[in-house]
Formats: sequence, structure tokens, C-alpha cells
Amino acid sequence: MKKIGVVLSGCGVYDGSEIHEAVLTLLAIDRHGCEAICMAPAADFSVTNHLNSQETGEKRNILVESARIARGNIRDISEVTAADIDAIMLPGGFGAAKNLCDFALKGAAADVNPDVARLLKEMVAASKPIGAVCIAPVLLAAVLGKEYSAKVTIGNDAGTAAEIKKTGARHEECPVTGLVVDIPNKLVTSPAYMLASRISEVADGIDICVKEVVRLL
Amino acid sequence: MKKIGVVLSGCGVYDGSEIHEAVLTLLAIDRHGCEAICMAPAADFSVTNHLNSQETGEKRNILVESARIARGNIRDISEVTAADIDAIMLPGGFGAAKNLCDFALKGAAADVNPDVARLLKEMVAASKPIGAVCIAPVLLAAVLGKEYSAKVTIGNDAGTAAEIKKTGARHEECPVTGLVVDIPNKLVTSPAYMLASRISEVADGIDICVKEVVRLL
Repeated sequence: MKKIGVVLSGCGVYDGSEIHEAVLTLLAIDRHGCEAICMAPAADFSVTNHLNSQETGEKRNILVESARIARGNIRDISEVTAADIDAIMLPGGFGAAKNLCDFALKGAAADVNPDVARLLKEMVAASKPIGAVCIAPVLLAAVLGKEYSAKVTIGNDAGTAAEIKKTGARHEECPVTGLVVDIPNKLVTSPAYMLASRISEVADGIDICVKEVVRLL
Repeated sequence: MKKIGVVLSGCGVYDGSEIHEAVLTLLAIDRHGCEAICMAPAADFSVTNHLNSQETGEKRNILVESARIARGNIRDISEVTAADIDAIMLPGGFGAAKNLCDFALKGAAADVNPDVARLLKEMVAASKPIGAVCIAPVLLAAVLGKEYSAKVTIGNDAGTAAEIKKTGARHEECPVTGLVVDIPNKLVTSPAYMLASRISEVADGIDICVKEVVRLL
């Protein structure tokens, strides 16, 4: 059974992984006959209260909170290499742009968590497919944009697309359940909650994304 | 559009709502053409670290953490009545048996959160359907078992089934993607992660459960 890594960034849309996207990624991986290998960095992040959208000042650990989505079955990303997995998926949520990198703060000048950057570079060098949805494609732009001229989508948000282009990556607009596929680099991206207004659209978009990642294996 | 309440109990299988079950309930409600109304009690619970399964001693708020699953779109259950919704769904996770009641500690002698108990009684009195999966059917036993001779399933766990029967409820064994339907009381229950070994089984079981709840509307 092929193994697909799932990079989590916490547990909740405002300060971690978007939970619907993460769960629907796990579902799509299972439905397409593959095994999900969840992983996250063991670093702290700033907590946002999801009832009022305010930062609380509290710190929690990305790996520990991501373990909620993974039902405890999760690895420290620092111990994972491209040799362990056949493909990788990145769900969205602000955690992808705040915890795995600081794109939310610095745009194209973002620094990326060193283990996330290392693993993404290993994957593309090994010609293993990478899928990313929602805001997570900014990670592909930040890590692979300049060197690989990566082509991605985050839907149609002009400000985010402009920052993506500044990295050296290419951005292509895409409807909610569509895909942008960078064939030479095996990058598959889809807008999910960047455009979706209901969870079934997210499920459909992510299923199509995972299906394409599996096709590229 | 019919409104289906979704009662959450936190965010994580060991100390709150089982996240996959909660998200797949929201997905099934959308797929079956209804609107989900998330709700939870604004009470504290004891946190479990999902990486090592140990209690941390920390307290968090059920409503605030449940808001992660609901993307902030959630109501305090104390402000919800049966007049606001057409049906109700209860996902599982230890939160259903530790935060919404204390069945995990006291079995058949469990006390139930007063607003959860009130709303369930209002729903059955109004002949509005109630769906519950995984361990959540113990709430139906604790609240409705004696008065309504409620019939439910939690799969085939003998110890839990015995406690359910002590409440006055009836328990019927059920396979992972099967249903037990108490037609007079409009109660629909299914085992989900009490028996499932993969997320696609949970998705299938919950979809069937929500479909039946919608049929009973």
C-alpha cells in the first residue's frame, strides 16, 4: 500500500490545520487505497480562540495539537524523510501560513520551518507527488518557487497570488473544485476553503486533488 | 432547508468530540441537503495530550474548543431549543461520555449535562429525529432509556451494552456500517469508531445514519 504523508500544523482553522480539510484529506487517501502518515513539527504556536477569533496569548505545541486530528497516530516531521513516503499532502488553515512558515506575516519573504522545507525539497528531488490545498500552496511557492518555477493555485485571491509570484513561482487562478497541476514538478493544488462556501465542495476538491496525486505516483 | 443540530463535546477523540466523526457528520448533513447547527456546552473539561494519551491537568472550555471543528460557527447549547432545529446528531469521542455526561465514570448511574438532557427530551417529545454514533448513544440511554425504553447500539462492546441496559434502554448489536433504528422514538444509532478500523468505514456509517435521520424528518 502506497504511503501518503499528511503535514499538519495544529488543530483549527485560525491557528492550525483547517480541520475539515485535514479530515477530508485522510478520507480521500483511504478511499483511493493508500495509507496516510500524519506528521507535524514539535514547535510551539500562538493560540487563537475559535469562538471570538482573538489570540489568547497562550502557547501550545503543533505536534501535540495535530495529534488530535490524527487520533494519536502521528510522527515528528523532523524524523521523516522522502524515503518513508510515496507522496505528500498539505491541508490548509492559517497554521500552514503561520506555523509551518511565516507567509501570513512576511509574504514572499517567508521563512519556512526547516524540516518542512527539507522534506518538500526531498520529495520534488525524488520526483514524488506533492498535493496542497487552500493556503498551503504558499509553502510550495516559498520552498520551490524560485528553483523549480513551481506552478500553483490558491484560488483567485489577488494579494496572495501577487506574493506567490514574487517568490518566483507561477500562480494560476482555479475554481473551487478544480486543480492546477505542475506536471514536471508533480505539484497538485486546489483552492478548498480559499473559495468553498460549503464542506461538500471541500470534500469534492480534496478528493480530486488526492486522486491526481495518486495518479502521479 | 432543514436544520440539523450537531452536539459537540470538545475537539479530539480522547477529551472531546471524535474529530473525524464530527467532520463526517457535517459533510453528510450537507450532502443530504440540510444545514448543520453546531452547539456545545460552555463548561470546562480536563485536557488529554493526544500524543501520549496522558491527562495534562489543564482545563479548557468545551464550547471554545468545539468552535475549532465548527470554524467558529457554533452556539451555546443552553440557548438552543427543539424549536430551533428539525433533528439532532451526536458524534462520538470520549467527550460524549466524559464532558456531556459522566457515563465513562459512572456507567448507568451517569449524570447528564442539564442542557443536553433538556434538549434531547424536547426533541423526542416533539417527535424530531435524533442520531448518535460511536459512544454517544449512551447519552440517549441515560436520558431516554427508562422513560422511553430507547433502543440503541454502540456496536458490540459487552461492558458498555450492559450499562446501557441498566438504564432501562435496550441494546442491539450492530456491524460497523449498520444502523439500529428505534422507530417509535425516532432514534438512529451506528457504531462508527466503536468498531471501525478505517476512516472510510466511519464516513459510510455516518452517511447512512444521517440519511436515515433525514428520512425520518
